[in-house]
Amino acid sequence: MRNFADRLIDAVRHKSSACVVGLDPRIDLMPDFITAGRTARSRANVCAIVSDFHELVLDAVADLVPAVKPQLAFYEQYGLGGLEAFENTVNAARRRGLLVINDGKRNDISSTAEAYATAFLSDSAFYSDCTTVTPYLGRDSLEPFAKACAEHGKGMFVVLKTSNPGSRDFQDQPLESTRRPLYETIAGIVDELGKSTVGESGYSSIGAVVGATFPEDGRRLRALMPHAIILVPGYGAQGGSAQNAAACFHENGLGAVVSSSRGITYGHKDPAISRSAFVQLVRESTQRMVDEIRKATSVPTPVS
Amino acid sequence: MRNFADRLIDAVRHKSSACVVGLDPRIDLMPDFITAGRTARSRANVCAIVSDFHELVLDAVADLVPAVKPQLAFYEQYGLGGLEAFENTVNAARRRGLLVINDGKRNDISSTAEAYATAFLSDSAFYSDCTTVTPYLGRDSLEPFAKACAEHGKGMFVVLKTSNPGSRDFQDQPLESTRRPLYETIAGIVDELGKSTVGESGYSSIGAVVGATFPEDGRRLRALMPHAIILVPGYGAQGGSAQNAAACFHENGLGAVVSSSRGITYGHKDPAISRSAFVQLVRESTQRMVDEIRKATSVPTPVS
Repeated sequence: MRNFADRLIDAVRHKSSACVVGLDPRIDLMPDFITAGRTARSRANVCAIVSDFHELVLDAVADLVPAVKPQLAFYEQYGLGGLEAFENTVNAARRRGLLVINDGKRNDISSTAEAYATAFLSDSAFYSDCTTVTPYLGRDSLEPFAKACAEHGKGMFVVLKTSNPGSRDFQDQPLESTRRPLYETIAGIVDELGKSTVGESGYSSIGAVVGATFPEDGRRLRALMPHAIILVPGYGAQGGSAQNAAACFHENGLGAVVSSSRGITYGHKDPAISRSAFVQLVRESTQRMVDEIRKATSVPTPVS
Repeated sequence: MRNFADRLIDAVRHKSSACVVGLDPRIDLMPDFITAGRTARSRANVCAIVSDFHELVLDAVADLVPAVKPQLAFYEQYGLGGLEAFENTVNAARRRGLLVINDGKRNDISSTAEAYATAFLSDSAFYSDCTTVTPYLGRDSLEPFAKACAEHGKGMFVVLKTSNPGSRDFQDQPLESTRRPLYETIAGIVDELGKSTVGESGYSSIGAVVGATFPEDGRRLRALMPHAIILVPGYGAQGGSAQNAAACFHENGLGAVVSSSRGITYGHKDPAISRSAFVQLVRESTQRMVDEIRKATSVPTPVS
């Protein structure tokens, strides 16, 4: 399969959209028409509710964004029924030509890291085009994922700087050796690891997660990792603006994708909203985000 | 439900054993008699193979250890069939009176961290008595897990220092502010967060993961977190010795549990080993580990 970075950049150019819709199943926030007649939280009901909800969302956004980002935590909170729905949603996204960025922030050491890479990057267990990974365990914990990316044409985003206040606690700590934040040392390793998977697009399949709430950090990290694609969460509900997110882009409007979840899928105020009004709202919210990001950066105009 | 720390310390005293058997399903390493007649890797076969294997292991070790530690990565690598087996194995462990430490090294921020806590600490999705969590995202990412522990009588182990060479890359980095390794700052937060869940045993339900390969770090962390139970992986296959693991214990032989996975469940050299020989080997390997740890520390003699 082609390099993940090239596939993502192609899709960004083609759709003239650097936005990603986050899929966070939260049954209590879904419109009534989705849950109607399925009040018991049986495994089958949970699976059907979560799968149906995302089919609708995917239909609404498929032509507007290059990728979707299912958040595993929200599927796992529903047990096996949730994970069956995860598989259904991933397949539904693929059928619509969307790339799947699995957000699980996994990691471990040696053979356990390999098992996670098998689980999420090899096509032998759960399908995804790309997965998010935490760095705390060290460079050798990232290598099995990088190897799987190279072998299977997949991608990974290493968590560097998150959008929460607590990201200051450890991520921002200046190290004695460099007098610079810890995340910069990790960025150096992301840059190094990524060199072997730079594709035709000029971008690597080993990217980084950088929250939209700290634009100064975003600018610095953009400069430190010239080949990395940056996944920017925290847009909308977490307080990140398009201007802030723009710090993670190159001047040509490439090099980053911005993700929003709640702001897209749970924007309705009235649980009694109709099916068609819901689909329209999801579509409009996505279009608004795409426009805002396009305006704040300079995402290339559509190539057809 | 009673405080996790108290339940674990009770079980350690009762069995005179501070050892934990790690459950890492790797079908390619299992004896032939387990896989016989089930060569196709269908969801049903994978679930049956992995479930049957662990029933045998659990029968062999149930009276020798207080807890088992299923590693989610190895279940996830088999997709939904693997996760069905995870649920079977957890239930089989509970039926045998074993505590379940789910090793998934999860974390995220705000409502996503809450979703993971619901998934693994609330009894509403996957059952476990305790779960492992990574700290990189900051103190506020740990709080939803700590809250769930207090509410549901569950426990968490925060990953501080792992047993791999790469643990030096970030975990050991001295900070400019403290001139001490990053993991010590995190240990301070673990100690603080744990204060509200110290039980009758004197231990908190918020503990830490500290690998068995760096005893100096273990000693230091033991001193910095007087109420934390330390989960010590890396015994056996990863090169940690009983003497090294002992650094994480208090002088009374409490305060830590040591985990071994491959050394217990995949110690057989011959895939054609018989069922009874396999069970005996697993039991003997576990007994040897328990004896070694008991000798190196001073795990209290059995209380019946």
